[in-house]
Amino acid sequence: MTPPVPDPFAERLAVAVKRCGNPVLVGLDPRFAQLPESVGGGADSSPRQQAAAYAEFCRGVIDVVAELVAVVKPQAAFFEQLGPAGMQALADTIGYARDKGLLVILDGKRNDIGSTATAYAEGYLGRESVWGADALTVSPYLGEDSLDPFVDTAAKRASGVFVLVKTSNPGGGMFQDLEADGRTLYRHVAEYVERVATETAAPCGYGLAGAVVGATYPEQSVELRALMPHTWFLVPGYGSQGATARDVAGAFAADGLGAIVNSSRAIIFAHKRPEFASFGEARWQDAVAAATRQMIDELRADTPAGKLKN
Amino acid sequence: MTPPVPDPFAERLAVAVKRCGNPVLVGLDPRFAQLPESVGGGADSSPRQQAAAYAEFCRGVIDVVAELVAVVKPQAAFFEQLGPAGMQALADTIGYARDKGLLVILDGKRNDIGSTATAYAEGYLGRESVWGADALTVSPYLGEDSLDPFVDTAAKRASGVFVLVKTSNPGGGMFQDLEADGRTLYRHVAEYVERVATETAAPCGYGLAGAVVGATYPEQSVELRALMPHTWFLVPGYGSQGATARDVAGAFAADGLGAIVNSSRAIIFAHKRPEFASFGEARWQDAVAAATRQMIDELRADTPAGKLKN
Repeated sequence: MTPPVPDPFAERLAVAVKRCGNPVLVGLDPRFAQLPESVGGGADSSPRQQAAAYAEFCRGVIDVVAELVAVVKPQAAFFEQLGPAGMQALADTIGYARDKGLLVILDGKRNDIGSTATAYAEGYLGRESVWGADALTVSPYLGEDSLDPFVDTAAKRASGVFVLVKTSNPGGGMFQDLEADGRTLYRHVAEYVERVATETAAPCGYGLAGAVVGATYPEQSVELRALMPHTWFLVPGYGSQGATARDVAGAFAADGLGAIVNSSRAIIFAHKRPEFASFGEARWQDAVAAATRQMIDELRADTPAGKLKN
Repeated sequence: MTPPVPDPFAERLAVAVKRCGNPVLVGLDPRFAQLPESVGGGADSSPRQQAAAYAEFCRGVIDVVAELVAVVKPQAAFFEQLGPAGMQALADTIGYARDKGLLVILDGKRNDIGSTATAYAEGYLGRESVWGADALTVSPYLGEDSLDPFVDTAAKRASGVFVLVKTSNPGGGMFQDLEADGRTLYRHVAEYVERVATETAAPCGYGLAGAVVGATYPEQSVELRALMPHTWFLVPGYGSQGATARDVAGAFAADGLGAIVNSSRAIIFAHKRPEFASFGEARWQDAVAAATRQMIDELRADTPAGKLKN
């Protein structure tokens, strides 16, 4: 018997966000120096021991947030930093999150041309792939024929891609804000993404191509929301990078869908924040839960996400 | 005793290219379906078995080309496609190439912001890093503050970065050729790269920041060579993508330095090319040697690389 084909990623994301009643995306960015004392084996650990600590830590975060949010985003860089052992921890983390019912967006910002892009896409996209992510972040500099292989594979695998459009870093505008033919580079990229999203729109109205749109640029979020009605936004920059719920409000559609808002360090290392320090290192998972609930409350209070059922 | 600090990457590259007398960069892009019959275990192999075949195949290529060229470029995508086992094969391949005296440029086109970019850089750059590459390809869309962490780490680790400037694919111009403030996007990126290269120039005259400049755009190669006198060019697009030695001639400085020209499939899978088919599958390494020598001869005949001693 053939297994049932899953719903398109955009649809599964919409259903999961509505079920959870919030648009919080928890970033899994493990850093060895910030792990709770009870996780990992001290500063002299080998990459293999550090990787085991990352996997244990991410399982602990996932156990907490799987009850609260729809989606997590492992950051490939921190796992890659530990070499092949780190990559095994990444694979284990993706699998564990899926088993707990979470959607998984791998933040790898991959890009290449032709059959090389296809190799990345086939490796990462879809639950049947070797890494098993539901979606992958990709970078657009190489142009349409570098993005199409990701789009084509995502279509076959009921998965998604999030293309960098307007990023959250202070220097993101160096190239992205350059104006050509009367509009910014990020707007050129946005037009490509929205075209793909329109062509692949699921019943929820959103397509398989999403856009990374930084929370630190509220005006551009509003501009892009209007330009890209079929595109899911992945919004980085909340919390640690300084953006507030009001800053990200413009990234949502009026019904509270259309955007997922990432927070990484402020949630997973909440035990290091003064306001949650009373939990102590031993109860670090309670700090994760409290920080996640706080962000959910902030977004529901000050953005259209308050209209999502809960 | 502290180990001696190695020479800057740009200098080591210049010395190695002059010693070998040619600018050929062999791309290690393993694809399971194209491996010689004597390597790997057939079409039903697991990712782990395929990864072992990739490592064996790359060792076989390296054994041949280490006698002929200065530098190899593993393509991360094909190893990543096999999951964690593929990443172990990648690490083994990088280590094996270094042990054979080759410089290693990892083609990963990584990019991210701030401390995440630093994590990539610290993981990949330098012989003391966990992956141990001499240089890494990076993508510029996120802007200067996403590139600086790679540059800073490369400076500390006597290693290099190659920034995508003008890529070889047909659709590369979609964004790269957009004109803003009177010049193309790729030229804006080129100005950043040349500035870093100038500031970090080694005795050979080249700095730690290099540029990816596609062989398929000869006019732009000439334009960029004039604009970027301190920048090593990594030139893809030769052979399988259609560019000839004459097409890449403009990427070189007058003395034959300044560019390394990549060929991947046309060398590593030379046993599949009609002109080298007489070697047969069993003598696939002889086909690799013949194809490498042919490319060396072409570049020495029709580009300034003919002026390199041999």
